[in-house]
Amino acid sequence: MYKAGIAGASGYTGYELLKLIHRHPQLEVGWLTSESSAGGVYSDLYPVDWDYPLISLEDGLARVGEVDVVFLCLPHAASMQAVKSFYDTGILAIDLSADFRLADPAIYTRWYGLEHTAQELLQVARYGLCELYREQIRGGQLIAVPGCYPTSVNLGLYPLAKAGWLGERVIVDSKSGVSGAGRKPKLDYHFVEANENITPYSVGYRHRHVAEMEQVLNSANGTAHQTRFLFTPHLLPVNRGILSTIYVDVPAGVTEDEIRGLYTESYDGEPFIHLIPAGKQASLGHTVHTNRCAIAITPADPSRPNGTEYIVTASLDNLIKGASGQALQNFNIVKGLDETAGLL
Amino acid sequence: MYKAGIAGASGYTGYELLKLIHRHPQLEVGWLTSESSAGGVYSDLYPVDWDYPLISLEDGLARVGEVDVVFLCLPHAASMQAVKSFYDTGILAIDLSADFRLADPAIYTRWYGLEHTAQELLQVARYGLCELYREQIRGGQLIAVPGCYPTSVNLGLYPLAKAGWLGERVIVDSKSGVSGAGRKPKLDYHFVEANENITPYSVGYRHRHVAEMEQVLNSANGTAHQTRFLFTPHLLPVNRGILSTIYVDVPAGVTEDEIRGLYTESYDGEPFIHLIPAGKQASLGHTVHTNRCAIAITPADPSRPNGTEYIVTASLDNLIKGASGQALQNFNIVKGLDETAGLL
Amino acid sequence: MYKAGIAGASGYTGYELLKLIHRHPQLEVGWLTSESSAGGVYSDLYPVDWDYPLISLEDGLARVGEVDVVFLCLPHAASMQAVKSFYDTGILAIDLSADFRLADPAIYTRWYGLEHTAQELLQVARYGLCELYREQIRGGQLIAVPGCYPTSVNLGLYPLAKAGWLGERVIVDSKSGVSGAGRKPKLDYHFVEANENITPYSVGYRHRHVAEMEQVLNSANGTAHQTRFLFTPHLLPVNRGILSTIYVDVPAGVTEDEIRGLYTESYDGEPFIHLIPAGKQASLGHTVHTNRCAIAITPADPSRPNGTEYIVTASLDNLIKGASGQALQNFNIVKGLDETAGLL
Amino acid sequence: MYKAGIAGASGYTGYELLKLIHRHPQLEVGWLTSESSAGGVYSDLYPVDWDYPLISLEDGLARVGEVDVVFLCLPHAASMQAVKSFYDTGILAIDLSADFRLADPAIYTRWYGLEHTAQELLQVARYGLCELYREQIRGGQLIAVPGCYPTSVNLGLYPLAKAGWLGERVIVDSKSGVSGAGRKPKLDYHFVEANENITPYSVGYRHRHVAEMEQVLNSANGTAHQTRFLFTPHLLPVNRGILSTIYVDVPAGVTEDEIRGLYTESYDGEPFIHLIPAGKQASLGHTVHTNRCAIAITPADPSRPNGTEYIVTASLDNLIKGASGQALQNFNIVKGLDETAGLL
Repeated sequence: MYKAGIAGASGYTGYELLKLIHRHPQLEVGWLTSESSAGGVYSDLYPVDWDYPLISLEDGLARVGEVDVVFLCLPHAASMQAVKSFYDTGILAIDLSADFRLADPAIYTRWYGLEHTAQELLQVARYGLCELYREQIRGGQLIAVPGCYPTSVNLGLYPLAKAGWLGERVIVDSKSGVSGAGRKPKLDYHFVEANENITPYSVGYRHRHVAEMEQVLNSANGTAHQTRFLFTPHLLPVNRGILSTIYVDVPAGVTEDEIRGLYTESYDGEPFIHLIPAGKQASLGHTVHTNRCAIAITPADPSRPNGTEYIVTASLDNLIKGASGQALQNFNIVKGLDETAGLL
Repeated sequence: MYKAGIAGASGYTGYELLKLIHRHPQLEVGWLTSESSAGGVYSDLYPVDWDYPLISLEDGLARVGEVDVVFLCLPHAASMQAVKSFYDTGILAIDLSADFRLADPAIYTRWYGLEHTAQELLQVARYGLCELYREQIRGGQLIAVPGCYPTSVNLGLYPLAKAGWLGERVIVDSKSGVSGAGRKPKLDYHFVEANENITPYSVGYRHRHVAEMEQVLNSANGTAHQTRFLFTPHLLPVNRGILSTIYVDVPAGVTEDEIRGLYTESYDGEPFIHLIPAGKQASLGHTVHTNRCAIAITPADPSRPNGTEYIVTASLDNLIKGASGQALQNFNIVKGLDETAGLL
Repeated sequence: MYKAGIAGASGYTGYELLKLIHRHPQLEVGWLTSESSAGGVYSDLYPVDWDYPLISLEDGLARVGEVDVVFLCLPHAASMQAVKSFYDTGILAIDLSADFRLADPAIYTRWYGLEHTAQELLQVARYGLCELYREQIRGGQLIAVPGCYPTSVNLGLYPLAKAGWLGERVIVDSKSGVSGAGRKPKLDYHFVEANENITPYSVGYRHRHVAEMEQVLNSANGTAHQTRFLFTPHLLPVNRGILSTIYVDVPAGVTEDEIRGLYTESYDGEPFIHLIPAGKQASLGHTVHTNRCAIAITPADPSRPNGTEYIVTASLDNLIKGASGQALQNFNIVKGLDETAGLL
Repeated sequence: MYKAGIAGASGYTGYELLKLIHRHPQLEVGWLTSESSAGGVYSDLYPVDWDYPLISLEDGLARVGEVDVVFLCLPHAASMQAVKSFYDTGILAIDLSADFRLADPAIYTRWYGLEHTAQELLQVARYGLCELYREQIRGGQLIAVPGCYPTSVNLGLYPLAKAGWLGERVIVDSKSGVSGAGRKPKLDYHFVEANENITPYSVGYRHRHVAEMEQVLNSANGTAHQTRFLFTPHLLPVNRGILSTIYVDVPAGVTEDEIRGLYTESYDGEPFIHLIPAGKQASLGHTVHTNRCAIAITPADPSRPNGTEYIVTASLDNLIKGASGQALQNFNIVKGLDETAGLL
C-alpha cells in the first residue's frame, strides 16, 4: 500500500484527488496540507465526514518520509519552490500546477510574467500527457500534469500533428465548466452571474494554455512545421467538463479514411481514449466523472468527399482527465501499477 | 412623467427596478446612487449600455428636488437613516429594506439585533403588501416593501388567516433562487457549490422573515388568535423565484368549497394574483419574470372529503413581486396610476 | 388599438409573442390558433391564467377580418400555404418560419429538401432583419422573420461584409439554449441529458441557417465577393440565448480603428444593438429577456497591432430578437409605430 | 469473479449499475437485456464505448446459468413475473422495482392499482434497506431494493421511530432530481420546462412511496404506534439527488442529547451513513455520486432548550443509495463480500 501526501488539498483538484485515492486499491492518504486551514480537519472544507487533519506545507515537508508520492495542487508560482523542496528529498513529485509544464523558461516567463526560479528542474520534469509520453513518464521523479484545456486539444489533434497534417492555423473554441476557475468566490463565478449564461474570455492568442498546445503539437512531427493556435475559452454554466471544438485544415489529397486510420492506430488499446464513430460528436456526457477523453472527427462539408476542412470535437472532465485523474494515471505509470487503478 | 431616484442601485433589486422603470410609461430615471461605484456609470456594473452616472447617497439627497420618488435598495440597518433623511424632505420614500416592515421596534431589535434609530417613522410607514393594504398605502409617504419569503406566505395564507382558520402551527418549507442572497460573492453562492445542489438554512424559527408572517397573519383576524410559523428556507439552484410549500390544519367542519370561496373572494379582480385550479400546484414557471403570485390549495388526503389538512403552494419572483415589482406597484398606488403600469 | 391573430400559438415563440403583445400599448390579442389544442384555452398549455380560446387555423382564416396582422408561428413547410391563404386576404402576414426567408426557391429546395409551393410570394416577401432592411420592410405585406442563429451572425458581421472585408471563409461557433429546439419532448432535450452538458450538432456546412448567412452577407457588398460560412451550432444547457463566436480574417492593412468605425456608423442610433467596448466580450447576460443584439470585436493577437485575425462575439435571445421580438419589431416598422413599442 | 445479468439495462438505474459494476473488484457484466433495444449494443443507448450486446429478457432467462445474480431494473408490474421466473431458477434476484417492497399484497393493490400475481414470493422477499435489515438480507434469495424517497426518510427517521418518538403525524417535504422520473421524454422533464423551476407533485398522502415509510417506520417500535406521513415530493432542477426536509414532534421531556445519542448508536460504524454535526444541514453536495445518506437533526426553536419540534434533513443520490448503489450493497451483503466493494 502506497501513501500519498497532498500539498494544497483544499481546492477542487485536491478534493477530487482525495475521492479518487479512496477508490485506489494500492494508495491511501498520508497527509494533507492547506495553508489557509492548517490546524483544522478536512470536513471543515467540504461536505464530507473525513477527519484528516490539515497541516502546513512546512510540516508536510518534514513528514515527507511517511509518504511515497507528493501530489502538489498549489497555484502556479507558489508551486515552483515547493516542488523543488520535495524533489530534493528524492520523493516522486506530481505537480498539478503550470510551473513545470513548459520546457523553455523563456516561454514560461513570456506567458506567466515571472522568472522561473527552479529552472534546473525543467530538465528532469516529464510532461505527464500519459497517452503520448508514457515511456518518458515511467522513469520520472517529477511529473508536470498537463493543463485541462491543452489536454483536450493535444489528445484531439496529436495524430494529425504527428502526420504533419495540421495547417498553418488551427482554431480552438473551448467551453469549460466553472470548477476550472477554482473555488475562490468571485463575481464572474457567482451563481446568478454564471448560470443561464456563457461568456468568452481571453480570446485569441491570449490564454496561457496556448503555450502547451504549441509545445506538444509543434514538436509532434520531426520537421520544423509550426501551427498557430487561435484559442477562445468560454465559461460554461456546468460544474465540470471541457468541450473543445477545433477547426483544422488538412493538406489536399488526404482522405477521411486516412485520418480515421491515424486516430485508430495512435490510440489503439488506450483505456481512456474514446474514439467516437463517424457522424457523431463528443459531448460532456461522454466524459464527465470519468478519466476519459472523447474525440470525434468530422469532415466539414458532406458534399465534398475529400475536402480539407475538418472539425474535431474533444471532451474531458477538467477535474479528472484534466487534472487529478491524469495525475493519478501518471502515478500508476511511474509505479508500474495497472494504469487504470482507481480510475474506473 | 415622474422621475425616480434609486439609492443603492448596484444590487440585483436596483438592477431589476431599472429594467421595470424602462417599461413604465410614466416614470423615468432621475439619479442613481452607489457608494461603492460613485463616480462611475451604470454599465460598469451590469452587461448593459446604460450610461447613467452613479453618484453618492449624499449627492442623491442633495438632488432630491429633481425626483418624485426615492426607491431605497440599501441593506437593512444602513437604510434606516437614509430613509429618514429622504422622508424629512417630504418626498415619497419606498424602502426595499427590512427596516420599516415591523411596526414594533422591540420585535425589530429581537430579530435584527440592533436598536431602531428612526422609531418615529414606524408610525407613518405603511407595509406595502398591495393586495392586503391598498387603502393604507394610497395615502403613504413611506412605504416598507415586504420581504420576498413573507410575501409568498402572507398572500398564500391571508384568506385562511382572516377567517381565523389557521391552526396553532403552520409549517412553511420555502425554496428560493440564489439572487435572493444578493450579489456579493460568497462560497455558498459560488456556481460550483450552489449548482446541482439544494441546501436548507436557518431552519426552524430562526429566519427573520418569520416576524413578517406573524405580523400580517396573526393580525388578519380580529381575535387574539396566534399561529406559529415553523419556517425552513432552502437555497435552490435557479437564478430567481420562490416556492413556498405550506402545511396548514384548518378547523374540523370547514369544507374545501368554503376555503376555495374565501380565496376567490379575497383576490377577486386582483391583477397579480393567479389562483390555480384545483388539482394543480404552483411552480416557479407560473411567476418568474412577472409581478404575480400564484397560489394553489390542495387537501392533503384525497380519500377524506372534509379532512383538516391542506397544502398551500405559493410562488413568486423574488426580485419582482418579492422586491422591485412590488415596490413599483406601491408607487403606482400612491400616485393613483394604473396599478399595472410597467408591470405587465 | 391593433389586433393580432397568432397562428400556431402553442410553441415557445407563440408564448413569447403573447407576453410581448401584453406589454405593447397599441396591440392586443385577436385570436389564437393551435391545431393540436383547438377547442381548449391557452391556460391548458402554459402556467398562466389567460383564458384565450384556441381555434383551428381554418377558423382563424375565417376570422381574418377581426385582426390587423397575423403572426405565423408554424413549422416550416406547414407555413407555406397558411401564409399564402392569409396573404391573399390582403392582411399583413408576419411569418416566423423559414419558408419565405430565402429568395431563391432552388436554394430553399436544396436546404429544406422540398419544393416551394408558393414561389410567387418569394418576390413580395421582405426579409425582416430590421436594422439592415428597414426601408424595404416598411412597405411590406409579407415579412419573413429571420432565423435565430443567422440574426446573431448577420448583425455581427454586416459592417465587415458591407466593406467587403470578410475573407474567403468565416468560422462560426454558435451556442444556443434549448428553447431553440422547440417544445416537443425528445431524448436530446430531456433535462437529464441536456443539463450539465454541451453538444455540437450539424457541424460544418450542414445546418440550414448557413443559407441565410450567405444570402445576407454575400450580397452586402456590391461585388461578387463570396464567403463560405463554416458553422457549428451547439446545444447549451440554458433555457434561452445564443452566443456566436465568429472567426474572421480581414484584409491586410485594415486597422482596428477602421473596423470599430464601421460598426459605430452602421449601428448608430439603433435601439436594439449594443456595441460592446473594446476588450470585453458579448455574453448571454447582455441580451436574454431583451430584444437586443450585443456585438464585440476583438483582434486575435494583442501583440500585433494591425493583425488580420478578429474574433466577433454576438449574442441575442433566440425567442425575442431571434424570433418573436423581431417579429414585433417588424410589425412596429410596417405600421409606422415607435419601433421599440412593447420591446423595452 | 462473479457475473451479473441486468434485466432492463437501458434506463438510468441500469446505466448507473453498469458504472458501479465496472468499479467492483469481484463482479463483472454477464449479459444485459433491453426489450426496446435487443439486438443492438449498449453504446447505442449512452455516450460510452461499451459494446455489450443487448438481448431480450427471454434470452436473459435462457442464459441465467452464466451469471451469479440478476439485477432487475424493470418498471413495476412488469417486474413481477420476471422476478418470479428468475427466482424459480434458484438464482439471486435483486429487484429495483416496487413489486416486492410491500409485504402486504392488499397494500400493494391499494397503491399500485393492480393485483399482485406473485404473492407467494412476498414471503421470501427481503426489504433491502441495508442499515436496518442486514441480517435478514444476508440469507435472502430475493431482495426488494427500497424506493429512493423512502430510503431518505426511513434512514432519517429510524432511530426516532425505534424509540417510539415519532408523533402522530410527520411532514415530509422532499425534493428530487429529474433522473428520478426516468429517461422517457415527457413535457414535464423537457429541459426548458424543468430548468429554472421547481414543481410540487402528488402532494399530501398521494405518492406511492408513503407506503414504504409506513411499513418501515410504523413497525420499528414493538408497539402499535402509528404515524401518518404527509409527503410532498418536488421536481428539482438538478440531474440527481434527493433532499428530504422532515418535520417531527417528539414527546415532551425528550432532550436533544438523547436524540443525538439514538442516532449515533443506531448508525455506529455504518460506512454509508454520514451524521452531520449539530448546527449544520444535509445538502445534495453531501451525497451525490456516492452511496451515502447524510442526516442532520436540528431543534426547531433555538430559544427553547427542550422543545418538541425537530427538523430532520436527509439527502442521498437517488440513482446510487436510492437505487443501483443500494442494490450492489445488498449483493455484497448476500455474497458475504466487503459491503463497500465497488461503492467508494
